[in-house]
Amino acid sequence: MKFSLSQIAEILQAKIEGDPHIEIHDLSQIDAGKAGSITFLANPKYTPYIYSTEASAVIVGEDFVPQQPVKAALLRVKDPYTAFSQLLLKVNELLHPPKKGIEQPAYIDETATIGQDVYIGAFAYIGPGAVIEDGAQIYPHSYVGAYSRVGAGSVLYAGVKVYEHCVIGKACILHAGACIGSDGFGFAPQPDGSFLKIPQIGRVVLEDQVEVGANATIDRATVGTTLLRRGTKLDNLVQIAHNVEVGEHTAIAAQAGIAGSTHIGKHCQIGGQAGLVGHLRIADRTKIDAQSGVARSIREPGHAFRGSPAQPYHRQLRSEIVFRKLDELQKKVHELEKVLADNGESA
Amino acid sequence: MKFSLSQIAEILQAKIEGDPHIEIHDLSQIDAGKAGSITFLANPKYTPYIYSTEASAVIVGEDFVPQQPVKAALLRVKDPYTAFSQLLLKVNELLHPPKKGIEQPAYIDETATIGQDVYIGAFAYIGPGAVIEDGAQIYPHSYVGAYSRVGAGSVLYAGVKVYEHCVIGKACILHAGACIGSDGFGFAPQPDGSFLKIPQIGRVVLEDQVEVGANATIDRATVGTTLLRRGTKLDNLVQIAHNVEVGEHTAIAAQAGIAGSTHIGKHCQIGGQAGLVGHLRIADRTKIDAQSGVARSIREPGHAFRGSPAQPYHRQLRSEIVFRKLDELQKKVHELEKVLADNGESA
Amino acid sequence: MKFSLSQIAEILQAKIEGDPHIEIHDLSQIDAGKAGSITFLANPKYTPYIYSTEASAVIVGEDFVPQQPVKAALLRVKDPYTAFSQLLLKVNELLHPPKKGIEQPAYIDETATIGQDVYIGAFAYIGPGAVIEDGAQIYPHSYVGAYSRVGAGSVLYAGVKVYEHCVIGKACILHAGACIGSDGFGFAPQPDGSFLKIPQIGRVVLEDQVEVGANATIDRATVGTTLLRRGTKLDNLVQIAHNVEVGEHTAIAAQAGIAGSTHIGKHCQIGGQAGLVGHLRIADRTKIDAQSGVARSIREPGHAFRGSPAQPYHRQLRSEIVFRKLDELQKKVHELEKVLADNGESA
Repeated sequence: MKFSLSQIAEILQAKIEGDPHIEIHDLSQIDAGKAGSITFLANPKYTPYIYSTEASAVIVGEDFVPQQPVKAALLRVKDPYTAFSQLLLKVNELLHPPKKGIEQPAYIDETATIGQDVYIGAFAYIGPGAVIEDGAQIYPHSYVGAYSRVGAGSVLYAGVKVYEHCVIGKACILHAGACIGSDGFGFAPQPDGSFLKIPQIGRVVLEDQVEVGANATIDRATVGTTLLRRGTKLDNLVQIAHNVEVGEHTAIAAQAGIAGSTHIGKHCQIGGQAGLVGHLRIADRTKIDAQSGVARSIREPGHAFRGSPAQPYHRQLRSEIVFRKLDELQKKVHELEKVLADNGESA
Repeated sequence: MKFSLSQIAEILQAKIEGDPHIEIHDLSQIDAGKAGSITFLANPKYTPYIYSTEASAVIVGEDFVPQQPVKAALLRVKDPYTAFSQLLLKVNELLHPPKKGIEQPAYIDETATIGQDVYIGAFAYIGPGAVIEDGAQIYPHSYVGAYSRVGAGSVLYAGVKVYEHCVIGKACILHAGACIGSDGFGFAPQPDGSFLKIPQIGRVVLEDQVEVGANATIDRATVGTTLLRRGTKLDNLVQIAHNVEVGEHTAIAAQAGIAGSTHIGKHCQIGGQAGLVGHLRIADRTKIDAQSGVARSIREPGHAFRGSPAQPYHRQLRSEIVFRKLDELQKKVHELEKVLADNGESA
Repeated sequence: MKFSLSQIAEILQAKIEGDPHIEIHDLSQIDAGKAGSITFLANPKYTPYIYSTEASAVIVGEDFVPQQPVKAALLRVKDPYTAFSQLLLKVNELLHPPKKGIEQPAYIDETATIGQDVYIGAFAYIGPGAVIEDGAQIYPHSYVGAYSRVGAGSVLYAGVKVYEHCVIGKACILHAGACIGSDGFGFAPQPDGSFLKIPQIGRVVLEDQVEVGANATIDRATVGTTLLRRGTKLDNLVQIAHNVEVGEHTAIAAQAGIAGSTHIGKHCQIGGQAGLVGHLRIADRTKIDAQSGVARSIREPGHAFRGSPAQPYHRQLRSEIVFRKLDELQKKVHELEKVLADNGESA
């Protein structure tokens, strides 16, 4: 890549403060910027780095006021994070044009349907009746089971496994090792203490623009559908159990787990390693902090929760503050008891 | 599938309340039931749905007493969950007859032994000296290392990895991406702060009827055996460290982790995201709640634990209730101090 | 294997107490020792087993003083754990000589560079411009993306996925299903509540002697490098987010997760299921207990932390002790209130 700063300013519709002829050939983090690179400042935590960065240019907010001289040129935009990501998109398109063609050996069942401009990597497996729509990219070692569908423009990176009868929407991204459609964890305890397996004959549906992280797992429904709605983003190693529903544009961070039949609303944010028990209803725009454990439904939209068991965010914080020195509270109570006892006032 | 209600009643040995000629062609969840489908009511949480479900029939307990009119026909059985799962088994057999035959290309070492009626999918790898017993199904991209054995009727879904010298019993189910036999996490810290790797030369043995979830991991023993006894069920993304033993018919929910050399009894239930430290002994029929952290052995069978660090279930609950408003307790103590100070009574 | 006890003593530079002619043909755990095997005693928890073990010999510390008669022969060394692991290394070399040669079918792009004495298993995929250095072992179903490098002597077990432009150092071990180089979880929230994907165009670099557990995931940097320094050890199912750095000889136990841009020092130990939020700095030699949640940077090296949110180890323990019977503390406060109220002293 090679751009002048003025070319970048045009792409981002940014105002330049500095030399528009500077040549940019790389992107960088603000704390690791090198000459010839452009970076951005969005998180205030990183503001000190703008005064020392070696980067040649920094994308900043319209209202950024330097407290010291800044060596780098500035590009002013409304939202620096979004602007930087637009730039990344541009560079990414140059670096990674979509792959096309079918490498050999691949296994494509003769009853499968393969669209136009598709990539199927070596050792990929496309089962009977499966459909790979136009422009989909199926990397090596991926498995698309019988009668499953991969929507137009979706990408399955290396070693993704989609069991039979599942649906991947359009423009989805499934990272390496993700498993879609494994059996839900359902067993009927028998009188002798053993388990009778409940067959899981439902399916998984991912609507459009869903992203699934590496080695994440999404179980098929017992009956019916495990459903991730449009724009849902799952991070690595997330577990979605059978018959779960996740609403539009909800993001779930790494290693979080959602137990069976829980329905999560839209625009929710679930932190890393959080756990939700089964059969809950979580309202839209709920935020669950990392490592929280949610055991009750949340009916009112737009609130934040924290802790295990989770409670409203600020309530939990207040308890946590006291917990930090709980032994001192205990000591005070002992002292009070002693004072009262010394005064002969104990009951 | 297509059954009359009376046919289903016969399969389940159920009493019919309603029209025995109703035609059933699908199974459904009670809150998503459609005409022509049969569902069930086991969890009392879902009782309200029985009065509104569109399902044509509902399997209920013998003692279910409707509080309002129910439109659906009823099938009365002793245990509705088990009955519904028997029905699922029947449907599942129709939908998924066992796969047979060897797809090409597959890699089967000439010294491997392949039984009768086996399925080996394309791109499966069977190493030297490995044994695949009768009726086993090895899906595409699965790997069976040298001298490992897969028992009769067991299923390895796509991309399962079994390292060398491991044993998978009969009628086991290993879901996509499960790893059996990876090295235990064992290192001897050296004086310079680096780690000397402890070779892991033991193995993993899964007895019969063990189920392992998608992307779960089971490490081989340092020496000896990491052992999952008959009927153990592991959910997705569970971690079993080296030299762990899990007793018969114990169930471990998603993302739980068991550290090295811990022995878990039989008929235990470990909740999701729970963690057990190493070298523990856990008595039979112990229940560990989700997200608990167990750091001590549990000697007495049949008890429930919760929290991190875990303590007896009800003890933990009592502490949790106070924790929820811990700041108010602190405030009361401050007030008491003030009262005593005002009265000149502080020590 | 077959050794005399004196041969083993020579390998370990150990002093023999017992018959040097005893024949040893297996290694065992002390609580599962069989005649003809050698075991070791390092963890004092296991001391009682030395008086009952059936093992023919036990490696013990120089200062071990038996409290009862020991039937087994003793080999005295400075550090029994390290000595046993040296013995394991010896046995491991005999059992598992490095694999060599290229099995068919494998996919090796014509622009890839393959070193001497390399093993490439069937169904392995080596992309364009990739480099596999001398003596590396690439097991079946592993994927090495375009322009990635696998250093000399490194092992990728079955089904490891390395995305493009990543670097695996020398003498690294990547266990089955590990994913290196998946996209970081980066999205810019848009005004309509949807997410704009931030392309992740950085890379992952593993320095030499790094070990990565089964199904662990390491995301590529947004820009720049996600970096695991020399000797880092990751257990199974660990998640390393984009732009994380981990210092030399740091060990991270199973299912722990490190969020984006956090930098961990060298010689740290992170317990299982622990979580660290993003953008932190963790000093050298920090210990984080299992299941802890770290939300603040740790500036001073060499301290231990515990809890969620984490605080200094002993401080946390003191609070935990009070928490165990928090309801009793509450009861005492109620009693004090009552005493004061009875005396007419409430404010």
